[in-house]
Amino acid sequence: MPKSYRRWIYEILEEENHANGWPNRVNLALMLLVVLNVVAVIMETVQWLYSAYGPIFEAFNVFSIGIFTIEYILRIWSCIEDPIYRAPQGNRLRFAITPLAMVDLIAVLPFYLPFVIADLRFVRAMRLFRLFRILKLAHYSRALQTFDDVLRLKKEELGLMLFTIIVLLITSAGLMYEAEHDAQPEAFASIPDAMWWGIVTLATVGYGDIYPITPWGRLIGSVVVILGIGLFALPAGLLAMGFVQVQAQRKEAEHSPGLVCPYCGRQIEGRSRDPEEDGRILEWRMR
Amino acid sequence: MPKSYRRWIYEILEEENHANGWPNRVNLALMLLVVLNVVAVIMETVQWLYSAYGPIFEAFNVFSIGIFTIEYILRIWSCIEDPIYRAPQGNRLRFAITPLAMVDLIAVLPFYLPFVIADLRFVRAMRLFRLFRILKLAHYSRALQTFDDVLRLKKEELGLMLFTIIVLLITSAGLMYEAEHDAQPEAFASIPDAMWWGIVTLATVGYGDIYPITPWGRLIGSVVVILGIGLFALPAGLLAMGFVQVQAQRKEAEHSPGLVCPYCGRQIEGRSRDPEEDGRILEWRMR
Amino acid sequence: MPKSYRRWIYEILEEENHANGWPNRVNLALMLLVVLNVVAVIMETVQWLYSAYGPIFEAFNVFSIGIFTIEYILRIWSCIEDPIYRAPQGNRLRFAITPLAMVDLIAVLPFYLPFVIADLRFVRAMRLFRLFRILKLAHYSRALQTFDDVLRLKKEELGLMLFTIIVLLITSAGLMYEAEHDAQPEAFASIPDAMWWGIVTLATVGYGDIYPITPWGRLIGSVVVILGIGLFALPAGLLAMGFVQVQAQRKEAEHSPGLVCPYCGRQIEGRSRDPEEDGRILEWRMR
Amino acid sequence: MPKSYRRWIYEILEEENHANGWPNRVNLALMLLVVLNVVAVIMETVQWLYSAYGPIFEAFNVFSIGIFTIEYILRIWSCIEDPIYRAPQGNRLRFAITPLAMVDLIAVLPFYLPFVIADLRFVRAMRLFRLFRILKLAHYSRALQTFDDVLRLKKEELGLMLFTIIVLLITSAGLMYEAEHDAQPEAFASIPDAMWWGIVTLATVGYGDIYPITPWGRLIGSVVVILGIGLFALPAGLLAMGFVQVQAQRKEAEHSPGLVCPYCGRQIEGRSRDPEEDGRILEWRMR
Repeated sequence: MPKSYRRWIYEILEEENHANGWPNRVNLALMLLVVLNVVAVIMETVQWLYSAYGPIFEAFNVFSIGIFTIEYILRIWSCIEDPIYRAPQGNRLRFAITPLAMVDLIAVLPFYLPFVIADLRFVRAMRLFRLFRILKLAHYSRALQTFDDVLRLKKEELGLMLFTIIVLLITSAGLMYEAEHDAQPEAFASIPDAMWWGIVTLATVGYGDIYPITPWGRLIGSVVVILGIGLFALPAGLLAMGFVQVQAQRKEAEHSPGLVCPYCGRQIEGRSRDPEEDGRILEWRMR
Repeated sequence: MPKSYRRWIYEILEEENHANGWPNRVNLALMLLVVLNVVAVIMETVQWLYSAYGPIFEAFNVFSIGIFTIEYILRIWSCIEDPIYRAPQGNRLRFAITPLAMVDLIAVLPFYLPFVIADLRFVRAMRLFRLFRILKLAHYSRALQTFDDVLRLKKEELGLMLFTIIVLLITSAGLMYEAEHDAQPEAFASIPDAMWWGIVTLATVGYGDIYPITPWGRLIGSVVVILGIGLFALPAGLLAMGFVQVQAQRKEAEHSPGLVCPYCGRQIEGRSRDPEEDGRILEWRMR
Repeated sequence: MPKSYRRWIYEILEEENHANGWPNRVNLALMLLVVLNVVAVIMETVQWLYSAYGPIFEAFNVFSIGIFTIEYILRIWSCIEDPIYRAPQGNRLRFAITPLAMVDLIAVLPFYLPFVIADLRFVRAMRLFRLFRILKLAHYSRALQTFDDVLRLKKEELGLMLFTIIVLLITSAGLMYEAEHDAQPEAFASIPDAMWWGIVTLATVGYGDIYPITPWGRLIGSVVVILGIGLFALPAGLLAMGFVQVQAQRKEAEHSPGLVCPYCGRQIEGRSRDPEEDGRILEWRMR
Repeated sequence: MPKSYRRWIYEILEEENHANGWPNRVNLALMLLVVLNVVAVIMETVQWLYSAYGPIFEAFNVFSIGIFTIEYILRIWSCIEDPIYRAPQGNRLRFAITPLAMVDLIAVLPFYLPFVIADLRFVRAMRLFRLFRILKLAHYSRALQTFDDVLRLKKEELGLMLFTIIVLLITSAGLMYEAEHDAQPEAFASIPDAMWWGIVTLATVGYGDIYPITPWGRLIGSVVVILGIGLFALPAGLLAMGFVQVQAQRKEAEHSPGLVCPYCGRQIEGRSRDPEEDGRILEWRMR
């Protein structure tokens, strides 16, 4: 097969953004197919819709499997056009184990497995795998990069908060179990049940399926709620600040190729900037 | 009709803020009428109030329609006093399709339609249109401009978050459907039902009409809640920062007509400022 | 009566903070009495506590009324030691109508009224007035000043948000009423009922006493929730930023009596600072 | 006993982080044992797990007590290797009353007490003490330091907010009690019950076990909710900002050993920095 075909396929599939910043027509069609697949899986579970249009759903699924299989094969075939997967340093296998390629495989593989494994439970779980086709949209999203940057920037604080939340959750579940177990042996049957109470309460969801009724339980619940709400809301505040910092740094990187010293007018060489610096403010006062 | 009348009407209706920063008497009266209309529509739906004062509500509605119709006609008639709607570049039609003019039309049109379309369901929906008269207040609000600026400033991040919320919602609804469908075939009858659970939970509303009861469902629910709450609260944090940035930029634009270079004392020419710059902090250190 | 007594009383009651930053012993005792009063009113409503210790509660109330009456009379008598209430510019009446003096009056007056108005309903409402004695703590709190500064700093944005919340609330209540009234004529009996749903939902409280069950209602509810949560959480974010700004400005005002120009070393004269400036960042780049 | 042994034990137990930033093998094993203990206590309360594996849980508990007792004794014995606990200024007793040493004692002491006090209720509460072994993880956590710094930085604002929350809670509970007591004498039986409503509502948990049903109660509830939500969410926003400030200050302290004046190039002496300064922005404009 001539190399030019492979190159042409590669460019269509992998060069995600053209000059105008939009995916090309082939990728747009694939995105649309992914969205339609997700909508179809969701609608299939509605009884009367499936009763009425069952065969259409099945046909659409088979059609999608076909398209996604072809897409997967073409991606694997053409990936070696990418310098980083070209032999000898790399090969098709190294591409096949990247997260994006795995997502593409998982989008089609479960369809072929039932021919091999004829287990009924497996067939049901297949529906979930079809739903996860939504992850194929990651191919076309620069958004994930932003999230990744923000999480990386704030990973220390987020880890600390997750740890604190878990300690608070276990401690308050233990206290609540002791306080309520005798009064509500059904609802607070064990500490894991009390932890379910803790999560539903600290996250302020409050379904109303489980709550304290004894004075001691209510007192513990009140203290836990007042302490814990700040803790659950903290990560959102931190992430919001992280977004602002990451975005600000990007804008600056785009617009200002170099800083100029305000004293001598010399160009300051392009430093490798750390997004955290944006969070810091240099104030200097000479007295 | 003499041009001076049209000019006079135009100035009364469109010059929203006088020197003292308040709408004039005519506009204040129209605002009051809008508020009274909204209050009337709300009170009409209370059974005993309507039984007692029905005719008064009806009379007030007819009276309001009359005023608003006159207002709409005068606005259309006088709009060509505005340079941007003056012929030949523009005309009354171009004004009639602006959002504000559409709101004014929708505030009165439904009243006249039943004479043409005598459909009972339509008559009921009319109540909603009367409620939407509240949007007429947009005429007198500089507030919308602020919101618009903030949304424009943060539109990229908000879009990214909306996308992530939708992906999380669909994924968790699918997982929860698989986990709970057998235990609660009524509540988790389909993935759309599970999505209702997802929204009510991730938004931390938690009505208690639908929640997981199986251990797997509770585990999935716990993970989704911990991951998702930050995501739902993020936009609020971002918007709050956007407000501070937009407001700061405005204040600065008002107070400081020009910056002066701290080194040479020269006036720095009024640059067209980007509100995002306020989010960035320039720290410069020479070593 | 000699002037020195009045001065002595005035200094004890009004000079809130001594050198060590703590209220003096008399004011500490009055604060303690207020706290004990509030605790007593709360405990009185618990049936078995009142049955057991009723007379003690009554005696403590009479004792407190006595103390607070004496305190009020002494404050009125000694207020003219304060230069701003000294004749001829001011007098005791001008002091008596200040908010703090009104709070002190309301703390004792309801006790004497039943001798004049012997209405049973009034006697019950008296309990509330006794609870409001908690507001007497405002005498000793610098905290209110901080809140006041923050609210003043952000009043424009908060007003805008309150307006938007009300518009969203009315619009969504109207839509939900149309969607759910036929399916749940009891719960969604009128638009005011639907507004109760709106507040409970947008604030993410979600008691579970009223929620949509029709597909349309759930769709409207989902959209309203996603739009509205950011709006309800926005004020908290803004106020948090306001606190940081106000506090930063105070700290700076305390520590740095004057700024020094970093170029020429001259002292910059103490400008009357605007807390909003702290939210702005001056970045200046000369290229 | 030779001093070298004691020194060796001391270094293993107390020198928490080696060059690679990780605890050594002994401390890792102790951390794992703590985590396993907590998991065991949680699982024991699940009926069928305890029925099946009861003896294993008991054996594991005895084994853990043994290890933790040896750990405690070794810590007490070796603590005097630490200069600050060395005689004559200090001694083993001074170490034994530090919070961390108390936690270690509480982790084992309750096991030995039942031999002395044979009270059944005490034996049950022992489970809680075993759960609190999770606090032993504090030995290995730099996280607590961060939290401590943030709380210290924002303690004034947090105190002010806690005070305001309590005042709002008591006031709204009083109002709600008056409004709802007659309609729901069971749910709103006393002001403490109404305070439970207030906490569950202001924290937006909303279990649905207690809520207003009268028009006045709903009106009060609506106002309280709109006022109060901002207040409950404020601390989270403040703490998030505090984290950013503390983290920024640390990063700066690590990376920049000294600031250089941008005018004269001289090194500015290492000032003792106040984390609050990061929240302040010095803008200086000379005109």
